[in-house]
Amino acid sequence: MDEQQLEEQIRSWIAAMTLEEKAGLCSGLDFWRTKPVERLGIPSILMTDGPHGLRKQREGGGLMDSVPATCFPSGAALACSWDRELLQEVGKAIGEECQAEGVSILLGPAVNIKRSPLCGRNFEYFSEDPLLASELALSHIRGVQSQGVGTSIKHFAANNQEHRRLSVDAVVDERTLREIYLASFETAVRHGQPWTVMCAYNRVNGTYCAENVFLLRRVLREDWGFTGFVVSDWGAVDERVPALEAGLDLEMPGNGGVGDRKIVAAVQAGKLPESVLNEAVARILRVVLRAVANRKEGATYDVAVHHQLARRAARESMVLLKNEGDILPLRRGGTIAVIGAFARSPRYQGGGSSHVHPTRLDIPYEEIVKAAGPDARVLYAPGYSLDADDVDPALLDEARAVAAAADVAVVFAGLPERYESEGYDRPHMRMPENHVRLIEAVAEVQPRTVVVLANGAPVEMPWLDRVRGLIECYLGGQAMGGAIADILFGVANPCGKLAETFPVRLSHNPSYLNFPGEGDRVEYREGLFVGYRYYDAKGIEPLFPFGYGLSYTTFAYVSMTVDKTSLRDDDTLHVTVTVKNTGSRTGKEIIQLYVRDVVSSVIRPEKELKGFAKVELAPGEEKSVTLVLDKRAFAYWDVARQDWMVESGEFDILVGPSSRDIALAQRVYVESTARRRKSYTRNSLVGDVLADPDAAPVFREVFEAFTTRSGMADMLRDAPEFAEALFRYTPLRGLVAFSQGAFSDEQLEGLLERLNGSGAE
Amino acid sequence: MDEQQLEEQIRSWIAAMTLEEKAGLCSGLDFWRTKPVERLGIPSILMTDGPHGLRKQREGGGLMDSVPATCFPSGAALACSWDRELLQEVGKAIGEECQAEGVSILLGPAVNIKRSPLCGRNFEYFSEDPLLASELALSHIRGVQSQGVGTSIKHFAANNQEHRRLSVDAVVDERTLREIYLASFETAVRHGQPWTVMCAYNRVNGTYCAENVFLLRRVLREDWGFTGFVVSDWGAVDERVPALEAGLDLEMPGNGGVGDRKIVAAVQAGKLPESVLNEAVARILRVVLRAVANRKEGATYDVAVHHQLARRAARESMVLLKNEGDILPLRRGGTIAVIGAFARSPRYQGGGSSHVHPTRLDIPYEEIVKAAGPDARVLYAPGYSLDADDVDPALLDEARAVAAAADVAVVFAGLPERYESEGYDRPHMRMPENHVRLIEAVAEVQPRTVVVLANGAPVEMPWLDRVRGLIECYLGGQAMGGAIADILFGVANPCGKLAETFPVRLSHNPSYLNFPGEGDRVEYREGLFVGYRYYDAKGIEPLFPFGYGLSYTTFAYVSMTVDKTSLRDDDTLHVTVTVKNTGSRTGKEIIQLYVRDVVSSVIRPEKELKGFAKVELAPGEEKSVTLVLDKRAFAYWDVARQDWMVESGEFDILVGPSSRDIALAQRVYVESTARRRKSYTRNSLVGDVLADPDAAPVFREVFEAFTTRSGMADMLRDAPEFAEALFRYTPLRGLVAFSQGAFSDEQLEGLLERLNGSGAE
Repeated sequence: MDEQQLEEQIRSWIAAMTLEEKAGLCSGLDFWRTKPVERLGIPSILMTDGPHGLRKQREGGGLMDSVPATCFPSGAALACSWDRELLQEVGKAIGEECQAEGVSILLGPAVNIKRSPLCGRNFEYFSEDPLLASELALSHIRGVQSQGVGTSIKHFAANNQEHRRLSVDAVVDERTLREIYLASFETAVRHGQPWTVMCAYNRVNGTYCAENVFLLRRVLREDWGFTGFVVSDWGAVDERVPALEAGLDLEMPGNGGVGDRKIVAAVQAGKLPESVLNEAVARILRVVLRAVANRKEGATYDVAVHHQLARRAARESMVLLKNEGDILPLRRGGTIAVIGAFARSPRYQGGGSSHVHPTRLDIPYEEIVKAAGPDARVLYAPGYSLDADDVDPALLDEARAVAAAADVAVVFAGLPERYESEGYDRPHMRMPENHVRLIEAVAEVQPRTVVVLANGAPVEMPWLDRVRGLIECYLGGQAMGGAIADILFGVANPCGKLAETFPVRLSHNPSYLNFPGEGDRVEYREGLFVGYRYYDAKGIEPLFPFGYGLSYTTFAYVSMTVDKTSLRDDDTLHVTVTVKNTGSRTGKEIIQLYVRDVVSSVIRPEKELKGFAKVELAPGEEKSVTLVLDKRAFAYWDVARQDWMVESGEFDILVGPSSRDIALAQRVYVESTARRRKSYTRNSLVGDVLADPDAAPVFREVFEAFTTRSGMADMLRDAPEFAEALFRYTPLRGLVAFSQGAFSDEQLEGLLERLNGSGAE
Repeated sequence: MDEQQLEEQIRSWIAAMTLEEKAGLCSGLDFWRTKPVERLGIPSILMTDGPHGLRKQREGGGLMDSVPATCFPSGAALACSWDRELLQEVGKAIGEECQAEGVSILLGPAVNIKRSPLCGRNFEYFSEDPLLASELALSHIRGVQSQGVGTSIKHFAANNQEHRRLSVDAVVDERTLREIYLASFETAVRHGQPWTVMCAYNRVNGTYCAENVFLLRRVLREDWGFTGFVVSDWGAVDERVPALEAGLDLEMPGNGGVGDRKIVAAVQAGKLPESVLNEAVARILRVVLRAVANRKEGATYDVAVHHQLARRAARESMVLLKNEGDILPLRRGGTIAVIGAFARSPRYQGGGSSHVHPTRLDIPYEEIVKAAGPDARVLYAPGYSLDADDVDPALLDEARAVAAAADVAVVFAGLPERYESEGYDRPHMRMPENHVRLIEAVAEVQPRTVVVLANGAPVEMPWLDRVRGLIECYLGGQAMGGAIADILFGVANPCGKLAETFPVRLSHNPSYLNFPGEGDRVEYREGLFVGYRYYDAKGIEPLFPFGYGLSYTTFAYVSMTVDKTSLRDDDTLHVTVTVKNTGSRTGKEIIQLYVRDVVSSVIRPEKELKGFAKVELAPGEEKSVTLVLDKRAFAYWDVARQDWMVESGEFDILVGPSSRDIALAQRVYVESTARRRKSYTRNSLVGDVLADPDAAPVFREVFEAFTTRSGMADMLRDAPEFAEALFRYTPLRGLVAFSQGAFSDEQLEGLLERLNGSGAE
């Protein structure tokens, strides 16, 4: 069916459907399916949870009982790969599994910004940076959709906490929305065209996302050109009719007919134009037809191949955070103490709707035994109970004994499953007491201690100084056990970097004073200053900065060149960066490019990520990559203009291995193509008029007559700084007041007319 | 004239005045006087700048040419005394000088909160804490007004920066206004009844203060019972008629008749009720009559006595910030290097309208020579130029040589006059490069180095570790020179404590990301978290905390007792604190009492200052002081209720020598007398209903039927944390959606009716 036939089919179906059938199509048949219209041959399609694996409810089973699927590393982990190709491969594999299970739409990717490390669902999300999040989501979408399976980018928008998520109002200024919280969706939607977008539970600036005209019509469809349908998060619809009007096409799960009847009644009462309903129906049918057309009956997938991909993905995502004295990689052989219950019962995924029933599960301890080789002795002690936080002295003693008897200790620790789930946020950023005490106990007796962390989001690390090595795995999926063995023994070279800042303590986080808000209101008072944007500007040292990660080799940033040093904002800038592997192992480096506006009339972060690339380099090898910057790399959202705006001026292009390690810098000049609008009023300041080359001469004659007559002249003589500032900040109406009648209101009006005429647009 | 006669006189004057005369009375005659109405015998009264001394323009002189008056320490300095009696004495002395100069109203005190250390006018303001600021302002007002001279508390309100002060809009949420920015006025206005209040230049939440009904009518008159008149800051009136309607009685300076004519026209056109004008006229006449009645013809004052008071005030306000190895007090005799041009040309006051022409001026160098005794050799080197920031190597060399030749070096440094003035803010928090380099140069050659700082607001101190002693003088007034000699040689024992936090670096300040705002909008996004409230909550270590200051003796906090451990919020709590002088010199300790709400449903600071007392103790002496706490000590501003609210629960009473040194703590229980209002809607959360003992039983039957029917039961079994949270945060409407029709919208309505009836008010 070509595009035209498809549209014709939709038109004829809509013409044939009753009002009740059309309303019915706008809500689910049940928890997971759209409604069929059998008499017309309109099929039903199936959606299931994602995003890092399939969670398809087993037929006849409970809500949390699902068929096996490959559990890939969670979003938080995958993001640390900074690897677009990898994300696409994983997406493709998940798409294949969807086809094998008859799933038409995977509910993901999840791109909400990590505003606070406490958000219970951070493990599903990519980053604190919108560019990184949106680029990776784009790859995920392309991967899944390449298999003829739709995606549902979620949760749109500003769903940055689980606490009271169904009632909370996220109060966010528009510029922050545009530059941070919407931006993490924007690139993925614009360039990935996900089949659907899932609207979030919460309110944004007073209105439920499901009823939010600004989000669902203005931003999503008008500004970004989204053509798919909008589906509600499960249970996110408050009032069905306003939601439909706002652009919420499909309510999920099914509403038992309640919402359908409201739509019918509203149309019949003339309160809802039937055309609005028809448009929603058309958007849903378009996706249904596409899904049916792309269905691959009898598709299967290779469980083993997908498991191997999960292992590679985990490997590429792990972040080496500390490697004092090159304690890693471990040598094969000798006595290795593997400590911590996570080594036998790995923590590899988070709780809630994304919880996958894995096809297989690697056990880290077993993988280490295999990798360590036949000459090694691998000891084990659990160290803590999985079910409680209480310290068990007997377990600590055992762990100490095992650690002391070995050449090196690898401690598996992090956050237990109950700490992190969809549905609730963490109350603090600490690890369980028994994990912390275990690390301390082991480090006390074993100077060669390496910690392997499994957790969905940052933790405080009061023990960091006492250990030699640290690997952050996040929630690495079902093959995390094999991957960590690869990393520990150098089969793989760590190449992940943090996609979020690890603060020293929770209170340093920018949202801290306003998370999770007060009652049903959470104010995003930190505004643009999310993640590294905040730590940079505030001069607060993080535990580990955004973009940080070590390798078993070393890299040098050789040079950066730009194709021009001056450009217009409608032009592009090509930045070529050359890096070299200066160590002795093949490795991958993630090159990060940040842009800094040198001087700005608006509040801006110190620098913002505007490009990145991952390159593999053999020892001694040197490669160049070119990153292309367009207007958006220099722009901020101008609320008054309702557009992206670049101010003419200098910008620094900053390149380096992390947000806190800028190796190369280059200044360029960007010229704005926007024109300033002029609108002087009686409250405009004298200083602003004088700074305007068109207005200044007009103003000056009045000004000079005034200073003489008003006594300002001697003030300028006696206290020049004070008088100057006084005058600079004086509103034009002040000329009337201070002239003691010598300059009239009427003269002011005349002056304003002349000023607003002077060379303005 | 008694009260009744006075009101009768006013009534008869108003009846006799023409519309033009009444309008005319609502603006100044000139820069400093109200208009007389000679045909009726209505006199003119004179106002002059303050607040820490008189700035009466010399007849025939320019705006900055004033008659001599005692220049007392500026507000920032006096606040460090934490001494209500001292502030009152200073106020009384200024009142005497006003009488001697025929001044009826002194334009002060200035109580704006120090939101940022950069505000150019901070030197005039008291504190970052509203309780301290308002208590000290109250004393100042009582002192001045005891002399039959009025005050004008200023600048009302949220005038916390000089940058674009005539056009900027301070965007502050109401709770922050009430608890911080208005609170610094509240106690002083309620209990001091200043004759006038001066409204600020800026806008607050979109409306100029001069036209701000919320500020000038609701808060000032209705809530606080203010009975005097409101005067504009000089030039603060935008539109005269809306300003008059809002409660701005007197426009200053005179408007040359422009504003008067607008009032007349508005009354004549029926757009402004004449009663509004009459009320303003009555309020002005009441103060005019009071001023005339209190005028003391031929009054004089003793210049020498006031100079001595200025010296004592400076002494009691200086803060000893560092005294390593008891380098201070200095012993008389030996060779003393006095270094820094400020020692000969002291920095003792700030620029702008508060700039006083002093009656005398102590020179620190000369006072040190006197105090050091006949056996001492006092050397001097200027070290830096007063006019520029550039480092002069020759001056540094000279300073090094002088320092090396002495037994001890005292370096005078800080901020030059051009750095701090009304009218503009500092762009950074650094000292001039030549001051910093001088301190470093001296410390390099002289291990016994003491720094004496003169500055109106905090500075960064990268050199702090290199010096042994540090005294913060702020701007100490005309007798600062004598006072510093008293402190250096132990004639006086330092007893001041900081009234604001000194951050390590500017970026740590809570307003940093939003100061001075963007264009004409400054958002107070840090909200309640001003000063120590921020550093406490964020866990950011300050350079010197709020309330910090050393003494030449030591104090022990012996005990704290409360008269009850449980009280209602309409009751008072008496807290008795016993302190002891454990050192060998007489000294004064400033006891600080903070209150912490242990658990709160709203965002609250970790602790807030709710009481303080200064006690003098001889060596070994022990004294008890009793501080009384009422409802406000435990309350927050409840925006929904528009009232102060205490939540039932535990509160910690914290007592100690500084905000970061809590010596004694006591927990009490406070019971709220407020009743919770209930209003459940379809979007209320299940968890909230279940937490309400009245509503829970009503709800439970529906709830249980629902969990069984909806499949929630197996979810609760399979993933209890997730399911529980999911359900807790489910809105009541979710019962309809998730029941798949088993629970109808109508049933929900019925449930809501019952819930809202259940035991509610």
